[in-house]
Amino acid sequence: MAINPEVAIGPEFIEDFVERVKEGEVCSFKGRVSAMRSHTNRTFFDLTDHTGKIQVVFEAKKLKNYKNLVSIPPGSYIEVSGKYSKERNPPEISADSIVLLSEASLPISPSPWGIDGLKSNCVNQIFNFTEIYLANPQRAAILKIKTNFVSALHKYFQENKFTLVEPPILTDKILYEPEKAVSAEVHGEKVYLSQCATFELEPLAMVFGKVYTISPAFRNEKGGSKRHLAEYTHAKAECLFVNLDDLMFLAGDSIYHAMTETVEMSRRELKLLGIEIDLESLNPENYSSMTYDEAVEILKKSGSQIVYGEGLSRSDEIILTKHVGNKYLWVKFLPFESEGFPYKKKPGSPHLSMTCDLIAPHGAGEMVGVAEKTTDIEEIIENLIKKGKKDDIARYWKYILLRRYGLPAHGGIGAAPERIIYGLLGLNHIRLTKPCPRYPDRKINPTEKDSLNPWKDEGLARIIKKYDLKCLKK
Amino acid sequence: MAINPEVAIGPEFIEDFVERVKEGEVCSFKGRVSAMRSHTNRTFFDLTDHTGKIQVVFEAKKLKNYKNLVSIPPGSYIEVSGKYSKERNPPEISADSIVLLSEASLPISPSPWGIDGLKSNCVNQIFNFTEIYLANPQRAAILKIKTNFVSALHKYFQENKFTLVEPPILTDKILYEPEKAVSAEVHGEKVYLSQCATFELEPLAMVFGKVYTISPAFRNEKGGSKRHLAEYTHAKAECLFVNLDDLMFLAGDSIYHAMTETVEMSRRELKLLGIEIDLESLNPENYSSMTYDEAVEILKKSGSQIVYGEGLSRSDEIILTKHVGNKYLWVKFLPFESEGFPYKKKPGSPHLSMTCDLIAPHGAGEMVGVAEKTTDIEEIIENLIKKGKKDDIARYWKYILLRRYGLPAHGGIGAAPERIIYGLLGLNHIRLTKPCPRYPDRKINPTEKDSLNPWKDEGLARIIKKYDLKCLKK
Repeated sequence: MAINPEVAIGPEFIEDFVERVKEGEVCSFKGRVSAMRSHTNRTFFDLTDHTGKIQVVFEAKKLKNYKNLVSIPPGSYIEVSGKYSKERNPPEISADSIVLLSEASLPISPSPWGIDGLKSNCVNQIFNFTEIYLANPQRAAILKIKTNFVSALHKYFQENKFTLVEPPILTDKILYEPEKAVSAEVHGEKVYLSQCATFELEPLAMVFGKVYTISPAFRNEKGGSKRHLAEYTHAKAECLFVNLDDLMFLAGDSIYHAMTETVEMSRRELKLLGIEIDLESLNPENYSSMTYDEAVEILKKSGSQIVYGEGLSRSDEIILTKHVGNKYLWVKFLPFESEGFPYKKKPGSPHLSMTCDLIAPHGAGEMVGVAEKTTDIEEIIENLIKKGKKDDIARYWKYILLRRYGLPAHGGIGAAPERIIYGLLGLNHIRLTKPCPRYPDRKINPTEKDSLNPWKDEGLARIIKKYDLKCLKK
Repeated sequence: MAINPEVAIGPEFIEDFVERVKEGEVCSFKGRVSAMRSHTNRTFFDLTDHTGKIQVVFEAKKLKNYKNLVSIPPGSYIEVSGKYSKERNPPEISADSIVLLSEASLPISPSPWGIDGLKSNCVNQIFNFTEIYLANPQRAAILKIKTNFVSALHKYFQENKFTLVEPPILTDKILYEPEKAVSAEVHGEKVYLSQCATFELEPLAMVFGKVYTISPAFRNEKGGSKRHLAEYTHAKAECLFVNLDDLMFLAGDSIYHAMTETVEMSRRELKLLGIEIDLESLNPENYSSMTYDEAVEILKKSGSQIVYGEGLSRSDEIILTKHVGNKYLWVKFLPFESEGFPYKKKPGSPHLSMTCDLIAPHGAGEMVGVAEKTTDIEEIIENLIKKGKKDDIARYWKYILLRRYGLPAHGGIGAAPERIIYGLLGLNHIRLTKPCPRYPDRKINPTEKDSLNPWKDEGLARIIKKYDLKCLKK
């Protein structure tokens, strides 16, 4: 189902260009200048896109306006024509002509191509000027790896006959506390932005047997953390007739296979980042496993302040994964208190739930969680009451009644691709996995004029004055 | 990357079961009862999933608890074992044993399997009890066709080297009026839910050349319409170095190819619905085309009340597509007043924009819109001022400045798969394309106790009393 190549639209990518053009052929190419080196008789431009780099060389004797070349800033787009030489490294166009397609005339410092986007000393600049620093090669590579992973997850679930479904974002049902939810008003009704799609995936699993979604989820957590976003991607699958072992298998298998494919698709990006992904450690055969009860015992011996019945803190997770030799670790039967109300209780141990979290080593935290859901109508009502939702039970009523409408044994897995990429690439902050991340530490709408107008630029000053743009005047 | 079949989890689909099991083989199967016919000596159950139907026959002489079979209500899940006969139609299991996996013990009328979900007299029931009526075969078939179309669109864009990107839902930038936006508060900041992803797709197109997203979009429109949702899916692509012709090509090509693939993937569902999709009419070669100016002339002659410069109403669209013989119709150069502020103005006609809408015949309305975006910083500022956003210009400032940071000629297409499926299937309401639709006429959170508790069911009454669920007491 490819576009007819004769009418292919948009830019040609460098990887395709170097495949298509023959040695010595006269060709033309449109691309973005990422660097320039100018000498008396020769000027070199690097043209870079997310698939590669070519060099363009201009000779003073061949180009009428040679002297004007130095005024073309990095970030501009140019079209060049000339003879192609595949044998250079990088491949080179010896240009006869140049057209300036767009001019990156604003000074921005440091250059997106001049910094290492993985280094933490650059990230403030990167996120103050998100739109502009998306061009940073490390930043772009991380986003590409992330999107490759999301695409590979889609492929995994589709190949295994899960039906892609569309749970709503606007909902009246939340899994956790209302204060951790983002609320909105729609047509005069107070609603929430989806914290978890389980309420819609469960009835949809009754229709399609196995369903999945990769869609936005929202948590209005207070306080900053390097591994939490206010808006992230939820990869969730729900399935009939499954138990905890099935779900642990599905979770490990889907992440391992999707990541194996991602590494294949992302060789260039991983090389650029200097990151090697340890796929073997991600193989479910190499995971460790323990129960929550065993975990608490280990933690207490290691000096953790954990109180039995509470969830694991980040430092607890580090202790535990270290304890098993920095492997991925399944922690089974988590305490009911720290888990969602639809989850089934462990038979004989009602303070524990039929859930299991996969903890990544080195503090990256929960990679994926799995849970059997209860089919017992009284159990789920009791859970709701214990979680303080008794007065809101009307909202959950039809969802609860699915259990009287035939909903059989079922369960689901939930993973955040952001968290997985953050852990596997060893990033210093999860926000690097999103083009426009939303997280507690930073407002979306900048209010300080300094951050809006740091450019000492005559053209901009003239425009701000001309249109009397008060909100931009210093 | 398939799941190891030895450990495949979840339900086996009927289409796979009838492939796997041999004539006369003793087998077992788990499935959902959609109908039952009981006689003195024989009882027949239909087991149905979204992939097909099998019949299970029980003989009184073979089954100890034969008399209890009649108490199993449709909607329940059962597991049966017995001899398989492929040659029957539908294929049949002559059962030796039965296990009741779950019991659909709540009376609900009419049965989800007993109504035609396409008929408008059933839709109130369907949407009052969304979760339960998802099992309606027509409803499920529409959702399956929709998800097949979304998957086919993903495939089209990926095969044509568009990079999947993740624009945020929480944003400070809106394309249209604030009163048409859903707002929310996140970490003390007032934000909007994305009306349009163009603000993030444009800088991402500078990184990846060609990008696309299929993600939720929100419009808080007042008043009901059969073709508007408050939450829908936005399939958007943005591309560098494209003009209006390129974009019209991309729009037609993507929808036509994805729909061709969808028809291939959805033969069973289309047959169930009794719908034939006229793929030839959807072939871009068969579209009609006219300018907005020509359209207004035709409309005025046809008695439309249109005022030059305003957008087209639904009745205008019907007149125009009828005028061209009920073809799909491109209307080119729409008035600036009715279009988004980032769109380029038509050279020489600043009241018109470099945009084009594809109108579906028979009142289904806009299928897809395309637009060249402006790269002129003063033009975009003037547009913002004209659209009443002058005091909010700080929010758009960095987006505007992309044009001083090298953003070259570019444009995008935008389509709502819901609208496309609604038009192509000839549905009576667009809400049928969503599992849990959000639209002005209906609140998410039901408030009337009658709608929450219509079941005269002793078990439920006992539970409501036991837990003192005040909000459910009549």
